[in-house]
Amino acid sequence: MLKIDAHTHILPKKMPNWSEKFGYGDFIYLQHHKKGFAKMMRGNQFFREIKENCWDARVRIEEYEHFNTKVQVVCTIPVMFSYWAKPLDCLDLSRFLNDHLVDLVKTFPKNYVGLGTVPMQDADLAIEELHRIKKEGLAGIQIGSNINDENLSESKFYSIFEACATLGLAVMVHPWNMMGEKQMQRYWLPWLVGMPAETARAVCSLIFGGIFERLPHLRVMFAHAGGSFLPTLGRIQHGFDCRPDLVAIDNPVNPKSYLGKFWIDSVTHDPLLLEYVLKLQGSKRVMLGSDYPFPLGDLEIGRFIEDMHLPPNVKEDIYCNAAAEWLQLTKEQFEK
Amino acid sequence: MLKIDAHTHILPKKMPNWSEKFGYGDFIYLQHHKKGFAKMMRGNQFFREIKENCWDARVRIEEYEHFNTKVQVVCTIPVMFSYWAKPLDCLDLSRFLNDHLVDLVKTFPKNYVGLGTVPMQDADLAIEELHRIKKEGLAGIQIGSNINDENLSESKFYSIFEACATLGLAVMVHPWNMMGEKQMQRYWLPWLVGMPAETARAVCSLIFGGIFERLPHLRVMFAHAGGSFLPTLGRIQHGFDCRPDLVAIDNPVNPKSYLGKFWIDSVTHDPLLLEYVLKLQGSKRVMLGSDYPFPLGDLEIGRFIEDMHLPPNVKEDIYCNAAAEWLQLTKEQFEK
Repeated sequence: MLKIDAHTHILPKKMPNWSEKFGYGDFIYLQHHKKGFAKMMRGNQFFREIKENCWDARVRIEEYEHFNTKVQVVCTIPVMFSYWAKPLDCLDLSRFLNDHLVDLVKTFPKNYVGLGTVPMQDADLAIEELHRIKKEGLAGIQIGSNINDENLSESKFYSIFEACATLGLAVMVHPWNMMGEKQMQRYWLPWLVGMPAETARAVCSLIFGGIFERLPHLRVMFAHAGGSFLPTLGRIQHGFDCRPDLVAIDNPVNPKSYLGKFWIDSVTHDPLLLEYVLKLQGSKRVMLGSDYPFPLGDLEIGRFIEDMHLPPNVKEDIYCNAAAEWLQLTKEQFEK
Repeated sequence: MLKIDAHTHILPKKMPNWSEKFGYGDFIYLQHHKKGFAKMMRGNQFFREIKENCWDARVRIEEYEHFNTKVQVVCTIPVMFSYWAKPLDCLDLSRFLNDHLVDLVKTFPKNYVGLGTVPMQDADLAIEELHRIKKEGLAGIQIGSNINDENLSESKFYSIFEACATLGLAVMVHPWNMMGEKQMQRYWLPWLVGMPAETARAVCSLIFGGIFERLPHLRVMFAHAGGSFLPTLGRIQHGFDCRPDLVAIDNPVNPKSYLGKFWIDSVTHDPLLLEYVLKLQGSKRVMLGSDYPFPLGDLEIGRFIEDMHLPPNVKEDIYCNAAAEWLQLTKEQFEK
């Protein structure tokens, strides 16, 4: 059965030193300090060590073939978004990353699907880049759960979503710039608590801001099974019902009615929660995802799903049908 | 069947004007602007309108008898905590609120159980008040999910938890001072997204900080079914497993092993999620709760639980056994 991993990250092996090039800012650069490893540095601060499976397309293919995965949907690492930079510089950086993805997808059309990045801080430049990556063969974009602390419901972002809908580009929303990050540095809590909350914030913003309502053809997926959105939807729906004066101010449609209208991945590390989200979303809106190649990801790429007693058609939806629909691709194009 | 509602809020009808009394700060005061209603004001800012069921013990009893509830566990509203105030002033305010609860519990011993509030910003004063309320007959305390943005894992709070364990006082953790509040004012998101995240932050802090490990007899409950903690426990456990260098720094015991060692309430607005948390926690650690009398609460006090097909012993656990164990009370004391 074809398996498409809908949530993975990749970087080019080599990048310009953006801070030097632009003359400001703590942009990310890579220090290849030993064979097969590199340090991601943010300014002078060590951010994370990565391995060659973060940049080497062939190493990756070998690794994920072990888990019977044929295709990876790839996008950059959210820390690369650089929405805080000057818009033209962010466009420059985005184009560099996108060109790398375009190249990758052209070289390995049966193994990779690319989601680009765009300067969300400037809608005109973002839309310009959307047109370009569409022509170049990327399937969509990845964006942050907030844009420099502004929510996706802000009207300044609407034209970007509209362009995605018009161009037929898929959108993946990934948590980053986590709420509460400064106040909970210990125990990795920005990743363990902040990220799920960020994703819930993003889903709520797109629902309550009326984006989904105004753009019914926009195809959006939320990382990590939608974060804490689905399991707290009872509370969110009840908030909508009891205080419409606070919640239903921009869109009168109740949040539960958007179930099954967006996609999520399977990154739950929890079969019980996967069952829960399948009940809410339906299997056509839940996609195999791993967050590969990072340790917090599901690096056995859905082995826990194999072990669940799901009907074959549900598994097929999760492994490939849901992703094919989200990306508007045919399964045949990945076959040998 | 005896029903104890483990999560409700109450205020005294009349309170001093604390800002005038202390000469600083935006303390809460009540404006009784029309019969049966009052405005909670924070400084000059309108915070929330409340009804007489927020302060009138008899009106409350009548209301919750409609839902076959016999007992309410009552505590103040988190905005009253005033942890930001000068410690002695916060003690003064806390004593006033606690005396009101002591009075209420003495007048209606079959209908109310009281959880006090203490100045968490000063451990010595907090412990002094813990001893006093224990003598006066309160069953425990309610505390915030963070204390002025500091996490419950901070060593300065440990002696307070230790005193609760020694005195046999129950602890309820309620979300407040929500992460991301300023950045997501629209759509009530601090309540709908921030609060569940806050509670997850608090559970994680007590687990990873080793508080539960060092104080196995401490009895803690988390509001709103533990917020987003339980449904994101797969991720949290995986974070612990893959990056012990970040997560297991103060306590080597894995987070899943604390399942069933703390209590949660049933405020999910979602039978599917209640089933999920029951599977993780067991019915002896899930208590009927409502968040009465606020609109975001379950104001039908567990009617959705009645409609679920749960075995009678599970319902009995949820309705009263779990709360009796948490509070160390006997069910008999509430019988006529």
